[in-house]
Amino acid sequence: MATLSSPHCPSSSYCYSSSSSSSESRYGHPRLVKISSISKRLAQKTLSRHAQKNPNSNVVRMQGGSMATKTIPIEGDSTPLKTPKDGLFSATSWQESSDLSGFNVRKDESTVSITVVGASGDLAKKKIFPALFALYYEDFLPKHFTIYGYARSKMTDEELRNMVSKTLTCRIDKRENCGEKMEEFLKRCFYHSGQYDSLKNFAELGKKLCQHEAGRIANRLFYLSIPPNIFIDAVRCASSSASSTSGWTRVIVEKPFGRDSESSAALTRGLKQYLKEEQIFRIDHYLGKELVENLSVLRFSNLIFEPLWSRQYIRNVQLIFSEDFGTEGRGGYFDHYGIIRDIMQNHLLQILALFAMETPISLDAEDIRNEKVKVLRSMRPLKLSDVIIGQYKSHTRGGVTYPGYTDDKTVPKDSLTPTFAAAALFIDNARWDGVPFLMKAGKALHTRRAEIRVQFRHVPGNLYNRNFGTDLDQATNELVIRVQPDEAIYLKINNKVPGLGMRLDRSNLNLHYAARYSKEIPDAYERLLLDAIEGERRLFIRSDELDAAWALFTPLLKELEKKKVHPEYYPYGSRGPIGAHYLAARYNVRWGDLGLDQ
Amino acid sequence: MATLSSPHCPSSSYCYSSSSSSSESRYGHPRLVKISSISKRLAQKTLSRHAQKNPNSNVVRMQGGSMATKTIPIEGDSTPLKTPKDGLFSATSWQESSDLSGFNVRKDESTVSITVVGASGDLAKKKIFPALFALYYEDFLPKHFTIYGYARSKMTDEELRNMVSKTLTCRIDKRENCGEKMEEFLKRCFYHSGQYDSLKNFAELGKKLCQHEAGRIANRLFYLSIPPNIFIDAVRCASSSASSTSGWTRVIVEKPFGRDSESSAALTRGLKQYLKEEQIFRIDHYLGKELVENLSVLRFSNLIFEPLWSRQYIRNVQLIFSEDFGTEGRGGYFDHYGIIRDIMQNHLLQILALFAMETPISLDAEDIRNEKVKVLRSMRPLKLSDVIIGQYKSHTRGGVTYPGYTDDKTVPKDSLTPTFAAAALFIDNARWDGVPFLMKAGKALHTRRAEIRVQFRHVPGNLYNRNFGTDLDQATNELVIRVQPDEAIYLKINNKVPGLGMRLDRSNLNLHYAARYSKEIPDAYERLLLDAIEGERRLFIRSDELDAAWALFTPLLKELEKKKVHPEYYPYGSRGPIGAHYLAARYNVRWGDLGLDQ
Repeated sequence: MATLSSPHCPSSSYCYSSSSSSSESRYGHPRLVKISSISKRLAQKTLSRHAQKNPNSNVVRMQGGSMATKTIPIEGDSTPLKTPKDGLFSATSWQESSDLSGFNVRKDESTVSITVVGASGDLAKKKIFPALFALYYEDFLPKHFTIYGYARSKMTDEELRNMVSKTLTCRIDKRENCGEKMEEFLKRCFYHSGQYDSLKNFAELGKKLCQHEAGRIANRLFYLSIPPNIFIDAVRCASSSASSTSGWTRVIVEKPFGRDSESSAALTRGLKQYLKEEQIFRIDHYLGKELVENLSVLRFSNLIFEPLWSRQYIRNVQLIFSEDFGTEGRGGYFDHYGIIRDIMQNHLLQILALFAMETPISLDAEDIRNEKVKVLRSMRPLKLSDVIIGQYKSHTRGGVTYPGYTDDKTVPKDSLTPTFAAAALFIDNARWDGVPFLMKAGKALHTRRAEIRVQFRHVPGNLYNRNFGTDLDQATNELVIRVQPDEAIYLKINNKVPGLGMRLDRSNLNLHYAARYSKEIPDAYERLLLDAIEGERRLFIRSDELDAAWALFTPLLKELEKKKVHPEYYPYGSRGPIGAHYLAARYNVRWGDLGLDQ
Repeated sequence: MATLSSPHCPSSSYCYSSSSSSSESRYGHPRLVKISSISKRLAQKTLSRHAQKNPNSNVVRMQGGSMATKTIPIEGDSTPLKTPKDGLFSATSWQESSDLSGFNVRKDESTVSITVVGASGDLAKKKIFPALFALYYEDFLPKHFTIYGYARSKMTDEELRNMVSKTLTCRIDKRENCGEKMEEFLKRCFYHSGQYDSLKNFAELGKKLCQHEAGRIANRLFYLSIPPNIFIDAVRCASSSASSTSGWTRVIVEKPFGRDSESSAALTRGLKQYLKEEQIFRIDHYLGKELVENLSVLRFSNLIFEPLWSRQYIRNVQLIFSEDFGTEGRGGYFDHYGIIRDIMQNHLLQILALFAMETPISLDAEDIRNEKVKVLRSMRPLKLSDVIIGQYKSHTRGGVTYPGYTDDKTVPKDSLTPTFAAAALFIDNARWDGVPFLMKAGKALHTRRAEIRVQFRHVPGNLYNRNFGTDLDQATNELVIRVQPDEAIYLKINNKVPGLGMRLDRSNLNLHYAARYSKEIPDAYERLLLDAIEGERRLFIRSDELDAAWALFTPLLKELEKKKVHPEYYPYGSRGPIGAHYLAARYNVRWGDLGLDQ
């Protein structure tokens, strides 16, 4: 089944196969990733501080996290050694890694080659290359790495570098040494032109990677930034002709992972012809967002939330996603999927699972994913009556006309594809029985926002109701985790308005990230790319999670399509279909994002 | 026992006795105070808004809260009618109330005379007169009121006004119309010179009050701002010679309420010779502070705190008071009492009782005070070994020498009086069994502060401890209610530091009053004076509460004095005696105010 051993790396002086010295075993990745990558990062930070204090320190960090004294003095490198990757700490400069003479190469060192398949696409330009640069800038990439763009168009290395350099500015262009760092980074970016289904073209790529790897333990990461219909071809070719023989080979795939249970299962089957589960990194970039990462920290490291996190105190949970723009002429892909597949079945459902899961045995990837699957499998089948769908229509405001969804030329005029959906979901387990989890996702709404809102039950035997007529059923406590934009956590509490007399209002106990943390928050792709390099799977979706997610939504999606359910039309830039309120009202919920005090 | 009926008001044309029309009964106050003063304030606010919209509105607020249409048009008064007191709404201007002709006076209206006994003292000048003016400025005083200063020194009305006007500026001097309002206020301030034990002098005062009351229902409030040894004399004289025959008579007394159980009981017995319990308003000005008032709101109107408020989740509670100055030449009074009597036995213990009480049946004064007494009576007797005492000594810093306590010329050289104390207290009931309540109070410390700190237990089965070595036993959740200065509520939570990798820190979910509420926060005396006028007893201390508070501290105080326990000396401006840490450590507590991240 797996074809990792295909000997496509010629044993030339340029490409030394060190498979015998590798700790890589049947899982396709070296044992060193068994060290929690997170604790490694922590340890590296510690080491980094140490190194900063003693820039000529002889301390070497060994694989497995032990320390040793290195005898090679650091020369010609005045910058402190920061955050080395993969537990290696070496005085060789990166130039040596491209020294193709075969001399001076430390065979026990490893290198990572990152190939962006579909390098000329939008995601690659806007997210992947900038994220890789940011990781490089922050010294999070391994010492030895090479980046390859792969796509069908003809392009030279210089042309790729030119293209990439235009988008790098978006993230950290005003920072110290940015220009210099960018130059260094671009020197390590290359391009190879090829078809996505050509074994030959991938073999050519493989040869080039070999040269850059220069006999080191070779780890290879392929990021498939291509349409799903060519996923399997590309995986077949990459795996057969360009996978590593000495280190690990991993493949990152982006949604869509099918359109329903069947197509998703087919895709998974296809991928598994060439890859083991452990090699597949299904990305859901929402899981890489700072506040989604923080969700588990909040829950599991704060006692005050512990008694609250169940049906006994939580009245409902709302998962809200809204964009303030439509498809804007690029609706072709979207129309085939719709908002439920595009946002709910993956991003919102993943957050829901993280939110609602039981305490995992540990924070290891498999333990967390085990608990997420349990949540998904405990969910009640979605009924059509618990879902409302909408589609935005043209709207004129202030003399400007905003187009409706079907005004998009790439969208069929009679499309019924929902650009908005709201759904009430239930988890039929002991913790969440009866608690509505409301989801809402839409395009072309009045605001851009992604947030989790937790509304708590009302105060039993409320003293203030009796005396002041304050309706604490309305003024319920609410915990808001704002994922984007402008990250924040706030807890709405009832408070006495200062002054004589007794008047209550809702105030926020507030943690606004921009005010608290001066550091900029990394893009989700940075975190996820780094995790994939480090073999940390916590934030990637396992096959059985994906299956469970599709099992929940597939019957609904089929029913919507079979019955040709018409969406409720809402004006571009509005707050969405009124139907969402009636759906919420049926479960005695009030949307938190549309209130007076959000 | 009570001497309310002494007919000292001559039935001249100047002093019309309307006792027959009063609803005053055996409790010494009219029935109208049975309306919750708080809901009255609310109702008045509503009415006030109504009145502001319709300045010539005919709506009249009647006693008991009902509305009626008034036929007297409003003339010569262009200011909107705001927040009338006592449920009365009248178009007669205050000038009419001093119209001694007897004509044009509405006999069914009431008036309040506030006599500040000890008018030339510090408290009167700094707190009481400014608070009365602030209430007047904000239109919280009744339409008809008169303020009398009473003291031994000879002074004319003008001289009193001059004295008072000098301190009025402290609170709202930059506000709109302040000068004008101050003029109006001062015109209603008068002075009467007399001995504190002279029936005759008080009778003269009574006559003058009669004249101002001009036949209306007369309510009289005496604020005893005098040394405790003359309390009873003053009460005897005021009650016998100057109490109201038509309305209520109330007396506000300030601490000290004795030095121990016996002297306190003697004082109470003395007061009760002349006053009923309902007429005695024992002020603890800490109870009038905004965040102490808010404590019950926080607890009882927020579900999220409901499961947390017990031994199951709370590890310890800390009540902290510190001043950054010493007695500064005015230690004579203090030396007789010491910090335990001055701060702990009243202010901190009162806050503790409010914090720890069971949910009262209602927010009515008696219901709340019943619950507070239960807490006090459930408390374990204080052991000497659970208390440490300190006294500040001289300290030179930056060339400046700060005097020690016994350097104060008003303090005996060999005084052992504690200027600092820390104590561990326990409430032996089902809710709080085993939870240490730590108190700490001191003078001449490094900071000025009063706060409540609630430290929660550690997270059971902490996942993060295992993976990252983060010691969440140290980084416990903490709720801080900062009473003064710079009012704030914040909840310390563990949070992920943004960025790649996983590092936790403690962040605050923060409500900073100055940032949230633009309105200035009223002084505690404003709230308490208004409550006394309105007959709201919630924030005043009942005899049995006082008895229970003394019962807790008296054996300890006697033991300290009998054994001549020497205080631990600490430098002026320091963090206090080290012993406080050892006391805390004995109960596995760490003071929250002296940590790195307060």
